[in-house]
Amino acid sequence: MNRIHLGHVFHVISIGVLIEALFVLTCIPVALIYKEHEVVQLIFAFVFISIIGGTVFVFTKRDVVNISIKDNFLAVVLTWIFISLFGAIPYIITNTIPNFADALFESVSGFTTTGSSILNDIEAMPKSLLFWRAETHWLGGMGVIVLVIALIPYFNIGGQQMMIAEGAFFTTEKIKARTIDVAKRMWFIYVVLTTLEVVALSVCGMNLFDAVCHAFATVATGGFSTYNSSLINSSASIQYVVILFMILSGMNFTLHYMFVHGRFKRFFKDEELKVYAFLILISSLVIAYFIVQKTGITWEPAFRQALFQVSSIITATGFVSADYLYWTPFAKFIILLLMLTGACIGSTGGGIKVARYVIVFKNMRQYLKQIINPNSIQIARFNEQSISLDVTKRIIGFIFFYYTTIAVGSLIMVLTGLDHVSAVSSVITTLGGIGPGFNLVGPVENFASLSEFGKYYLSFNMILGRLEILSVLVFIVPSFYKK
Amino acid sequence: MNRIHLGHVFHVISIGVLIEALFVLTCIPVALIYKEHEVVQLIFAFVFISIIGGTVFVFTKRDVVNISIKDNFLAVVLTWIFISLFGAIPYIITNTIPNFADALFESVSGFTTTGSSILNDIEAMPKSLLFWRAETHWLGGMGVIVLVIALIPYFNIGGQQMMIAEGAFFTTEKIKARTIDVAKRMWFIYVVLTTLEVVALSVCGMNLFDAVCHAFATVATGGFSTYNSSLINSSASIQYVVILFMILSGMNFTLHYMFVHGRFKRFFKDEELKVYAFLILISSLVIAYFIVQKTGITWEPAFRQALFQVSSIITATGFVSADYLYWTPFAKFIILLLMLTGACIGSTGGGIKVARYVIVFKNMRQYLKQIINPNSIQIARFNEQSISLDVTKRIIGFIFFYYTTIAVGSLIMVLTGLDHVSAVSSVITTLGGIGPGFNLVGPVENFASLSEFGKYYLSFNMILGRLEILSVLVFIVPSFYKK
Repeated sequence: MNRIHLGHVFHVISIGVLIEALFVLTCIPVALIYKEHEVVQLIFAFVFISIIGGTVFVFTKRDVVNISIKDNFLAVVLTWIFISLFGAIPYIITNTIPNFADALFESVSGFTTTGSSILNDIEAMPKSLLFWRAETHWLGGMGVIVLVIALIPYFNIGGQQMMIAEGAFFTTEKIKARTIDVAKRMWFIYVVLTTLEVVALSVCGMNLFDAVCHAFATVATGGFSTYNSSLINSSASIQYVVILFMILSGMNFTLHYMFVHGRFKRFFKDEELKVYAFLILISSLVIAYFIVQKTGITWEPAFRQALFQVSSIITATGFVSADYLYWTPFAKFIILLLMLTGACIGSTGGGIKVARYVIVFKNMRQYLKQIINPNSIQIARFNEQSISLDVTKRIIGFIFFYYTTIAVGSLIMVLTGLDHVSAVSSVITTLGGIGPGFNLVGPVENFASLSEFGKYYLSFNMILGRLEILSVLVFIVPSFYKK
Repeated sequence: MNRIHLGHVFHVISIGVLIEALFVLTCIPVALIYKEHEVVQLIFAFVFISIIGGTVFVFTKRDVVNISIKDNFLAVVLTWIFISLFGAIPYIITNTIPNFADALFESVSGFTTTGSSILNDIEAMPKSLLFWRAETHWLGGMGVIVLVIALIPYFNIGGQQMMIAEGAFFTTEKIKARTIDVAKRMWFIYVVLTTLEVVALSVCGMNLFDAVCHAFATVATGGFSTYNSSLINSSASIQYVVILFMILSGMNFTLHYMFVHGRFKRFFKDEELKVYAFLILISSLVIAYFIVQKTGITWEPAFRQALFQVSSIITATGFVSADYLYWTPFAKFIILLLMLTGACIGSTGGGIKVARYVIVFKNMRQYLKQIINPNSIQIARFNEQSISLDVTKRIIGFIFFYYTTIAVGSLIMVLTGLDHVSAVSSVITTLGGIGPGFNLVGPVENFASLSEFGKYYLSFNMILGRLEILSVLVFIVPSFYKK
């Protein structure tokens, strides 16, 4: 293997940091419009981040010939870490989140599109900082698209499955060749969805600022709201709009592209989409039933509450329309299982994702068949493509890594003094990029009460989850450091 | 595929039932010795079970030519179910456990070597019935050995891994050829371990009756005690003896054979054994540390308490030496994780088992290496044998099935009205054949308070776990019923 090309790696990172600086810049007009005194500090933050990013950019250069997989991994992981570190600066410099662990947590939670917050009083924040908070989601979501395209092909899991959705099983080389194409398409859909949601929310009576912030948080499947009680007190029409866009954002973006191009047959035959839709519908109906039974309210608000929360959790957005801790144990358990399900491959959502489960279940069925008929050859198929043994192993392996990470993380969080339910759910919700958990980190609570160490660990956990675990874990294999 | 040969299947079942009748017979002298009035009912139970078993035996016959895999599956699953049903008769007929759901639960818990009980006052039971209870464990443990040899090769998981431990990777045909040999050896070790424990417990001052019952429960990794408070009030020497035999019974029996034959090098190089020993030691030390910290008692009793409980849980025995619900959250979490670990392949212990995790982790490491060096060929090895992709897939698939079964089972138990912790832990502990769980089903509690439906479900769950899930699940695949 080649050596690591740090020059190239830092060049890539500096591009990310410079884009980030541009986003900080856009907070300044917001501060001016709302006449906030944070405008000076924001300018300072912009200048500071630009100078560092610019200096590194100038003194390093992109190496297009020699870069290896190691360089790619390093670049991706470090970019996420550095952008998160710089993203904490606006909070610290304006004294809105003075504590470093808190500011870093909020920044990481934004860029990983998790949406867990340490803020006790969101509405007390200056608008310009709330805008920055929403922007970290949106920028993070864009980054995920790059990630899916650039890195996941190496795992044979995300990228290729996304390609399967397109009806062809490309080799890694072919995926690379189409990278730019696919990325452009996904970004286009991302921007269109955001715009449509801003319009829809405005039509439903939300002011433009809140509409933009919520649209950023929805399409990136982030979950930061500008309201203290998230969307609990919002009108039914606003909640329905958010539900719609959460579900759309949790879908494979390639499917949106197909839909727009009139390939309805392929769209409606997508196996992941069918399971995703089924899970949302059945979970919402069951939970709505229990809400009606328990509280005696009518079916419409009960179903809306259930559908909102189910969509919010399965897509890993994390908006809240009801304090689900008061639901029946069965309904709460469904929410927990949805936290472990995740959205669709090729979306900005986190977690394990529906397609991976579908492929595993299909393989397991084939495995059972093979036990009964040992001499027959059974091949599992997903969207009419056969799934190789190697891909299957990698997908199941990923799921196994995922659960192991939850177990280890839970142990660590229990050590910080949390009760079991808070500990396990804080790890699940941050690893999956969801937002709220149970008990102390429940839907109407936040992560402020956690220990400083706990906040650092969960920040790491969010990055681990966002980068699909493996891209971080490759650094613990000794052979990474061998020439 | 061939059709199902019900005659053959019921012939096999009837052999199991006749052996069971012989065990019921041995309870009669116990009733006579202790002058219990249950002797008449026990004779009636023996006659009843013998007549049914005998009639079926006479009117069916073994088919050695045409039997298929389907027949084997059906025979194993139905044998376990029928033996459990007949095993409830002694409890019901003597009116010691009059309720059918309770009696069935106790019987299934015995034969699956789980050790979860619905008895509120164990010491009030007649000795002859306590003996029956211990015997169900011992007979169940014997059945497991048959199971491991006869059925697991089809899964490519248990059996072959056991063979790997012997230093060779046989084909299914070769395994079959050696079946009788291996079974004889394992039974020999099983009987020797039981005898040695009876002697050791007697030397430590336990009376012969209790010594036999506890030895049966230990070597089968069952967990039924004859005392209300399990082994909490037993002497240190008795606890150490039980610890030793729990650890020995959780080991791969093939290793005992190697040890006796002087193959120490191979014994000490066994990768599963090393991890098993490491897990027991490190968990016990950590828990002992927390016990000392919390209660201020000295290291000896603290370490003994920790070592006892860790060994009891990881081997899926389920004896109790301390109410671990009062331990620190971290210590409790370790106990929970050990419940998901299981003992060694080739033992009578339940659960996922150490070797499967070792193989998965080795594969994951190889997978990470391959991501970094895509062109290199990496092969994971276990005990110096390379592990094929297919075997890996099946092992990971099994683990995935296992966790899915826990998730589904927990949902069902929550529906019966249990809190989350009781529900999840009741499913984990019965699926893994362990015994105690957390909260309502904690170490000093029992399963009596559960709903009737809950008891039936957990009985099913115990059989599911004991038969390694897949042998039960093959019945849900439609192709099982195709000719």
